[in-house]
Amino acid sequence: MEFTSNKNNMVYGVQVAQRAVSPKNPLPILSGILMKLKNNNLCLTATDLELGIECTVPVNGSSEGSVVLPAKYLSEIVRKLPDVLIEFSVEKENNVATLKYAQSKTTIHGYPADEFPLLPSLDGETTYVIKQELFKNMIKQVTFATAADENRPIFTGVLFEVEGDELRLVATDTHRLALRIGAIGSHGYSGEKTSALIPAKALNEIVRIMPPENEEVKIIFSNNQVVMELDNIRLISRLIEGQFPNYKQVIPQGCKSKIRLNTREFLDAVERASLLAKDGSNVIRLAVQNHTLIINSNSPDIGTIHEELPIVLEGEETQIAFNSKYLIDVLRVIDAEEVFLELTGSLSPGIVKPVEGDNYLYLILPVRTV
Amino acid sequence: MEFTSNKNNMVYGVQVAQRAVSPKNPLPILSGILMKLKNNNLCLTATDLELGIECTVPVNGSSEGSVVLPAKYLSEIVRKLPDVLIEFSVEKENNVATLKYAQSKTTIHGYPADEFPLLPSLDGETTYVIKQELFKNMIKQVTFATAADENRPIFTGVLFEVEGDELRLVATDTHRLALRIGAIGSHGYSGEKTSALIPAKALNEIVRIMPPENEEVKIIFSNNQVVMELDNIRLISRLIEGQFPNYKQVIPQGCKSKIRLNTREFLDAVERASLLAKDGSNVIRLAVQNHTLIINSNSPDIGTIHEELPIVLEGEETQIAFNSKYLIDVLRVIDAEEVFLELTGSLSPGIVKPVEGDNYLYLILPVRTV
Repeated sequence: MEFTSNKNNMVYGVQVAQRAVSPKNPLPILSGILMKLKNNNLCLTATDLELGIECTVPVNGSSEGSVVLPAKYLSEIVRKLPDVLIEFSVEKENNVATLKYAQSKTTIHGYPADEFPLLPSLDGETTYVIKQELFKNMIKQVTFATAADENRPIFTGVLFEVEGDELRLVATDTHRLALRIGAIGSHGYSGEKTSALIPAKALNEIVRIMPPENEEVKIIFSNNQVVMELDNIRLISRLIEGQFPNYKQVIPQGCKSKIRLNTREFLDAVERASLLAKDGSNVIRLAVQNHTLIINSNSPDIGTIHEELPIVLEGEETQIAFNSKYLIDVLRVIDAEEVFLELTGSLSPGIVKPVEGDNYLYLILPVRTV
Repeated sequence: MEFTSNKNNMVYGVQVAQRAVSPKNPLPILSGILMKLKNNNLCLTATDLELGIECTVPVNGSSEGSVVLPAKYLSEIVRKLPDVLIEFSVEKENNVATLKYAQSKTTIHGYPADEFPLLPSLDGETTYVIKQELFKNMIKQVTFATAADENRPIFTGVLFEVEGDELRLVATDTHRLALRIGAIGSHGYSGEKTSALIPAKALNEIVRIMPPENEEVKIIFSNNQVVMELDNIRLISRLIEGQFPNYKQVIPQGCKSKIRLNTREFLDAVERASLLAKDGSNVIRLAVQNHTLIINSNSPDIGTIHEELPIVLEGEETQIAFNSKYLIDVLRVIDAEEVFLELTGSLSPGIVKPVEGDNYLYLILPVRTV
């Protein structure tokens, strides 16, 4: 294996692939990146067996081949290289890679490429296609509502549901639920409804490595895996097994109090109130009056906060208590100048949604206070 | 106590003073910031009894007084305030502070001001005056060479030595030594030589809080304390007791090999070599040949690096091994396009200094290798 490359392409490819390397993987070869040269394309692959990332970068190939190099050292070294032409070669017998740059050189001991697990190449029947900017936005507006606790795997995933040309992403940790609807296209669509549970981690990763110049994301499902394809990147993830709760059932139809208010002012006030809600498990109290939303929190021995915000109220005056974190999370990503807060008494879930448009809904359970 | 203030002045004052609050201080009142209003000046003070910081900001005072408020909550809250006029008042009877902003307000429970320790007001006989930019630069070029280990307190300090109009800062951790010389002025100079050991921590703090628009730093010593004054800030630190080693004795006069090379190229090469020197306690090997410096490092099982740099050599060819960290530290701060590396065989200390000027010297002990 032999090629030359500029520094930036090497750094980029290694950094993208490296995101799939788990630092605590017990299999030594999985701490490595598989480098595979074919013509003038260098394909870099890493996987922790749950998630795999493949990134292809252009180089000047002169002899094909492959090797697995330790991700940590490879990445530290290429980042520190001078910005000159890098000559890369691997001795087939012992898998030692040599990088020559200017008058200097480094050698890195690798592993045989054939010991590296193969990433499956999926040929699903249905390929979905979605605009990258939209997909990114949809992912950001739901993944935060998943649970971190791996003991209930279903809640660490995002439901990916397609019906016709509508994609719905749904996430819940049982305390709150986020639902985002967007337009999706498909090739070879079978007419059946697709419903799959993608790990939030895989979705957050694809957002992180989306190149700004890439326009569309292709999404292909097989039995228990999903592939997301960008121009030069493929991300493969296992799907989560199990039955996602029936989210439609829990979304209330209508409300008794519909409050319209400025998103940014709401967020700032809740953030301040949360500073003194620490000792009471983040509980803040909302009281809805005719033209005013009052937010109160207090930490005994430390202090209190009393916030007043102008609102437009349709319906009844009411009051309710929330975990401030769950409100802050949604107000940070909702991407609308004004929101509706819909309430039905202090025991029913609240709904947050943008005033304009109908493509986002966030449900949040109240905290019962004495 | 009552005043109004804009948000930015409050945030600034609290953040500067807060740097002297130690999060693990066992005395509750020391987790607080003393706020003292006199006329239109709000003075904020914090201390961990080793280091104290006082910052004065302009406000619109209407009733004088003082209180101690918990630094953590005060700082979180003022940072989150809206950018409006803040009305600040304290109830004398119970030390509860109220901040009103727009329609909202917060209360914070405080401590009585008279329980807060007094920072000494030093009236030393000699006041030194030094340009802020120069002092900052001098501090950055020596403090990194101090030891972190509090068991040998002398080596956690920087020697501050004045003779005539020359200030020398010296730091060592016994493996390397940094010496920086600069010009200093004085008022009421007694003619005696000043020699004091200032904790590196206090010097690093004063650099961090230097306002860009401040031009001079006043430095006043008493028996066991030092005060550094900026326009609106006073930093007070205890001095370290004990005898600093005789640094002049360890600096070699002359050398057998004088190597001139580009600072940036040297730094980059040493940084790369250090990546594969990890398993051998950071040891890199330098070989000086006629026109070339060769740097080698290797980690068994991982790989090797071989770097070649162009140099101008005066004197003998030689070789030596160093801890790469000690070289990287100095090359990052030396602030000169080219440096001299002066060597006298592989067992004597090496010297790094700028090619231009005579105000900086860094000594580094070699590593003995088999």
